[in-house]
Amino acid sequence: MVPSEIRALFAMVARPEIVSLAGGAPYVSALPLDAVGGMIGELVAGKGAEALQYGSAQGDERLREHICEVMALEGVHGSADDVVVTVGAQQALDLITKIFVDPGDVVLAEAPSYVGALGTFASYQADVVHVPMDDGGLDPAALRETLARLKRENRRVKFLYTVPTFQNPAGVTLTTARRAQILEICTEHDVLVVEDNPYGLLRFDGDPVRALRADDDRVIYLGSFSKTIASGLRVGWVLAPHAVRAKLVLAAESAILCPSNFSQLAVREYLATQPWREQIKDFRELYRERRDAMLDALAQQMPDGCTWTRPEGGFFVWLTLPEGLDSKAMSPRAIAERVAYVPGTGFYADGTGQRHMRLSYCFPEPDRIREGVRRLAGVIEQELRMRDTFGETAATGTGVHTPGPGIV
Amino acid sequence: MVPSEIRALFAMVARPEIVSLAGGAPYVSALPLDAVGGMIGELVAGKGAEALQYGSAQGDERLREHICEVMALEGVHGSADDVVVTVGAQQALDLITKIFVDPGDVVLAEAPSYVGALGTFASYQADVVHVPMDDGGLDPAALRETLARLKRENRRVKFLYTVPTFQNPAGVTLTTARRAQILEICTEHDVLVVEDNPYGLLRFDGDPVRALRADDDRVIYLGSFSKTIASGLRVGWVLAPHAVRAKLVLAAESAILCPSNFSQLAVREYLATQPWREQIKDFRELYRERRDAMLDALAQQMPDGCTWTRPEGGFFVWLTLPEGLDSKAMSPRAIAERVAYVPGTGFYADGTGQRHMRLSYCFPEPDRIREGVRRLAGVIEQELRMRDTFGETAATGTGVHTPGPGIV
Repeated sequence: MVPSEIRALFAMVARPEIVSLAGGAPYVSALPLDAVGGMIGELVAGKGAEALQYGSAQGDERLREHICEVMALEGVHGSADDVVVTVGAQQALDLITKIFVDPGDVVLAEAPSYVGALGTFASYQADVVHVPMDDGGLDPAALRETLARLKRENRRVKFLYTVPTFQNPAGVTLTTARRAQILEICTEHDVLVVEDNPYGLLRFDGDPVRALRADDDRVIYLGSFSKTIASGLRVGWVLAPHAVRAKLVLAAESAILCPSNFSQLAVREYLATQPWREQIKDFRELYRERRDAMLDALAQQMPDGCTWTRPEGGFFVWLTLPEGLDSKAMSPRAIAERVAYVPGTGFYADGTGQRHMRLSYCFPEPDRIREGVRRLAGVIEQELRMRDTFGETAATGTGVHTPGPGIV
Repeated sequence: MVPSEIRALFAMVARPEIVSLAGGAPYVSALPLDAVGGMIGELVAGKGAEALQYGSAQGDERLREHICEVMALEGVHGSADDVVVTVGAQQALDLITKIFVDPGDVVLAEAPSYVGALGTFASYQADVVHVPMDDGGLDPAALRETLARLKRENRRVKFLYTVPTFQNPAGVTLTTARRAQILEICTEHDVLVVEDNPYGLLRFDGDPVRALRADDDRVIYLGSFSKTIASGLRVGWVLAPHAVRAKLVLAAESAILCPSNFSQLAVREYLATQPWREQIKDFRELYRERRDAMLDALAQQMPDGCTWTRPEGGFFVWLTLPEGLDSKAMSPRAIAERVAYVPGTGFYADGTGQRHMRLSYCFPEPDRIREGVRRLAGVIEQELRMRDTFGETAATGTGVHTPGPGIV
């Protein structure tokens, strides 16, 4: 399942009768829209000459200072001068890949990994090599083995791309002990670490997890306001070592001239005048309730043989089907039963992942989540009956997994 | 002069005592900021769930329909389905270059050409070949010769990049007769035409010029709201043949996921509810007054031997210095006299352009423009005296032109 297929899926599941556990859209309606609208209206009326004008390619300086305050919540201490504001963290990924990757270079990524990152890596003809994860996140022993193997094969590894906290799509978090190990292994092998951290501040219990970048200045850190303020603003950032930062600014300028001052100043003003920390707390409570609704429903409804992750924050649960079932083949039947998810194949560059699916709890109300899980459980039970009656071939439609035509 | 040098120049000339004829920033303060602020505030308060949320990679459908209405003013009749909304037209340029250009491919461009386009082409390792212009725009005979030569050399020409109307930086407009010829030559040689048209609606007298795309559906057309609404929104677009459009959407998704709904809906709402045609008329009157101030001042103040273009719209005058003078070498001395311009070398991929400079009249008030031209004339006169006394070497500082390190 390539991004274009996922787009088609999303278009289909926008129908109101379908419970979509597919999308990763934040619940922006929880924002105090009147207050935010008033603030932005005043911004344009009072500072329109700045908010509606071109800005610098690196991004607004005062916004970059606020970004440093936000990163400090996860132990990251960077200089505003080393921050580049981007069109969501996605653009940061694109620019980093453009700068570092030549066709055929290896990029390491968790298995599974964020579909949008896999699409970007493919668009620069990177060769994505997946490294296994478990409930504790990326497996250091597997990383070490993979790097040793690639070294024997004389492959050039450009960076490790990782979402260590409340991972998309798996929902797991890299343990503290492993964080140190991952950094050590990458230093040893001289491999750059790109840490993508859009969900970090949405931890349901306790203080935010310490970012990888907090303990190693060489880590390239990607952040975003998409989940803590609003995704429609398209404001993300990258904090990079100084020499990389200079290249990123040039690449950004060539790609878009400069990020939108309109969006940037809306964020700057929001951080300067609105109770943003309390709003993040409200988001956390809201998503925690939805996570609980999903985990409870899964525990009550799912047939034996299904397993799933238990996220401590973020948006996603990763579900593994019983042997012999195929989430991609099952997807049209699930939609016929008015429930949607993203099949696991979207999150692997190598076309695997058929037994997995991503379930998101960020957008639907808790009752809808419960109803969606109920419908999904029914579909899986039906698949299991088909499997037991006719064997794997019938259950998966063709019995043969056909990987998509490659991303972009 | 590469983009980074121009950035450094712009930072320096932001000092209030300097009259900057360097920047190409529109005069956004002419917008009715209270009304626009009120409209945007209501948009967020009333439709925040949409305006603050992710959108589609292609861009908002209703905005794309409005864009078709805007293009119709220049004779372009396209389908909203073939429009892709981009982060300014700069992103459209980036995506097109990414899709079409392999390292070493030739891109044809006017001599001089838009510095931001040259930067993008260089970032994909295109080989820019300039085609001469005169007061009637791109020279068809020169285009034909260039294409014949490149054919003999077995070079692969990917597209012709042109700003046919009120060109940046030269301020000239391609004549009607030549438009047909250019299209014919490119068809004959099977060369794609990329028409960049940010200034087209800012014609000072008469109806807008008919776009190249109006007479040939195969032209890839780039548009922008940066000069007709506000540059800080970063909303541009590309209208492309269907097969190209599909590739552009995939490339856009990989680069930024989707353009900002916040910016897009602000534009959509502005076009749906505000008197945008009258506002463009106001902008035209404002820029016409400034163009007149600049042309009058040039006629009165410039020493013999200087020549310049007479734009019928847009933002820029292109000035050619007397023989033996070098605009780049002279630039620090002009700044010392509190006037700034962009040296011509920024607009050529081959390091030429020393005798030229771009003067923009879009941002300063008319009195400041007159004062800037007066200061500039003084600097040029001083250079001429130095040239006549000491010869070319002294006037240009080193006597040797050192091209910049190539545009990144």
